[in-house]
Amino acid sequence: MDVVTGIKTIFQTENDVFILASSGSGAMEAAVVNTLSPGDSAIVINGGKFGNRWGRICRAYGVSVREIILEWGEPYAKEQLSEELEINPDVNAVFSTLAETSTGTEYDIRGYGEIVAQSEALLVVDGISGIGAISCPMDEWNLDVLLSASQKSFMVPPGLAYISFSKKAWSLVERSTSPKYYFDVKEAKTSMRRGTSPWTPAISLILQQQEALKIIARFGLENFISHHRILGEATRAGVQSIGLELLSKRPANILTAVKTPNGIDGEILVKTMQEKYKTYIAGAQDPHKGKFFRIAHLGYMGGFDVITALSALEMTLEDLGYNFQKGASLCAAKEILKENWK
Amino acid sequence: MDVVTGIKTIFQTENDVFILASSGSGAMEAAVVNTLSPGDSAIVINGGKFGNRWGRICRAYGVSVREIILEWGEPYAKEQLSEELEINPDVNAVFSTLAETSTGTEYDIRGYGEIVAQSEALLVVDGISGIGAISCPMDEWNLDVLLSASQKSFMVPPGLAYISFSKKAWSLVERSTSPKYYFDVKEAKTSMRRGTSPWTPAISLILQQQEALKIIARFGLENFISHHRILGEATRAGVQSIGLELLSKRPANILTAVKTPNGIDGEILVKTMQEKYKTYIAGAQDPHKGKFFRIAHLGYMGGFDVITALSALEMTLEDLGYNFQKGASLCAAKEILKENWK
Repeated sequence: MDVVTGIKTIFQTENDVFILASSGSGAMEAAVVNTLSPGDSAIVINGGKFGNRWGRICRAYGVSVREIILEWGEPYAKEQLSEELEINPDVNAVFSTLAETSTGTEYDIRGYGEIVAQSEALLVVDGISGIGAISCPMDEWNLDVLLSASQKSFMVPPGLAYISFSKKAWSLVERSTSPKYYFDVKEAKTSMRRGTSPWTPAISLILQQQEALKIIARFGLENFISHHRILGEATRAGVQSIGLELLSKRPANILTAVKTPNGIDGEILVKTMQEKYKTYIAGAQDPHKGKFFRIAHLGYMGGFDVITALSALEMTLEDLGYNFQKGASLCAAKEILKENWK
Repeated sequence: MDVVTGIKTIFQTENDVFILASSGSGAMEAAVVNTLSPGDSAIVINGGKFGNRWGRICRAYGVSVREIILEWGEPYAKEQLSEELEINPDVNAVFSTLAETSTGTEYDIRGYGEIVAQSEALLVVDGISGIGAISCPMDEWNLDVLLSASQKSFMVPPGLAYISFSKKAWSLVERSTSPKYYFDVKEAKTSMRRGTSPWTPAISLILQQQEALKIIARFGLENFISHHRILGEATRAGVQSIGLELLSKRPANILTAVKTPNGIDGEILVKTMQEKYKTYIAGAQDPHKGKFFRIAHLGYMGGFDVITALSALEMTLEDLGYNFQKGASLCAAKEILKENWK
């Protein structure tokens, strides 16, 4: 299978997809420098570490930023964006995140697409951790720039990023005066027409992506997304059944962020899981260190990985003196996995 | 072995080395945007496709370029650079290539280092294909920025680039106003101090590099460089023994560029080698297509790869009606390999 075709299927787009030799942050930079120019203005929806990154990149390239800073885990309604666009009718682009890795929150990209399509602005979406796990049809939802990277649901080690531009976005690409070279998508397009890439491609990773795309194709995109939904539901049911609270008001099916219960040190919890039980979950990043922890469930992870994580979590909580009905999280998760087994 | 330490050994430097998730061209961009500012000026030594790239990157970021355009394969003497710097005393940097992949030519980096060190300017060297094959001690030769990439003598698939800055270069890094984000070396330095990287690292390639560095360490850098010298000498002796001419007046021990003999179509020669004899040599790039061909001999290639290439070349030349003493190139190359065998 041709890698570009496989990625277009997952992006659900007829637009060209470009493969960059960089991590996802490189594709975020590519989105900014190819569509905007110094002095342009943008709305940035910042609900965590990666939303924050959009603002930093825009400012580095002289773009004036109206930043919507959300509480970590809070959603942002399309109606709010609509009001924001009315107040700032001249913005050239709206930057959002499909699924914020720092909080496990999904944003209403479909809704933002409805709103932004009615304006002159572009809708630019960081789908690094979300694409593949969450349905996000680029063309149907009117996204103008969509990007992702190899290491999340694409199931390949980090080092490749993927980016696609709508026709509306290309009209801004043509007039963009931001300085760029390595991430210049016009160079990439010219090379693609000749069947090459402008710079040396990260070929070993591309071959790995080719194999991983075959696995996704065997599932079918719809089933691959359902698989992520089931893992998300099982994890959430598991942690809630033992009295734990979710961080996110709109949880994404890529990872589950769980508030550390009162009286327990979140950093010790993560350390115990990792060192004593060899189960690698993530802590919260600054400035929320210790306040919550994150259980991933995406890409090549399966139902029994959820059971494993919950088992280690229960063992850890016992060690730390948390009071709960032992085994409840495993039963709750298993029930959801069993009902949905195919 | 720690990868950064291994690369520092090969760069022969005490400076920090930063690992980028990009191809070598990304590190070239990093060299420009971190040290220069819009309106700065630079001398670019352009002896081929990659020298040309320096000029393109500088111009993309608003740097004024005095470009020395050389005939492909021609050397450039340090005295010429000295005169150029006298005429243009205000340049902020001199950009050169250690070994130009498009022509197989080595430039006098040691000599340029002597000259540029006496000025305020930085000496910036693209060592993508040269480092590891050719001795280029960064500190001893007074280089200010040295960069390379994973896929040449470092013996790892493409996707990683390495870059190092001298103290003199850091003073320009501190004052550089070029817009940058993904390639911002100050971010990389801050992260390195905390033992991390600013963006997701291309970890599978880093682990591969760790193994390849162990191989180089077992040889020892000096022997690894001698190995390249011997392969270069054997290849040159081989092609010259059958009446072929070298393109380069100062051949680099990374590949040998050979002029296509009169009456033979160079593109057919390369195609025959590749398709009939399954021996992958490279043709010449635009605007010299067909006029010469390039036999690589670097990284994990060994003496018998040289013999293989020459055997296929002789077979191809027979097919194309070139008149020569059959077997002579093999004998000439084998003699050099045998004499130097350890």
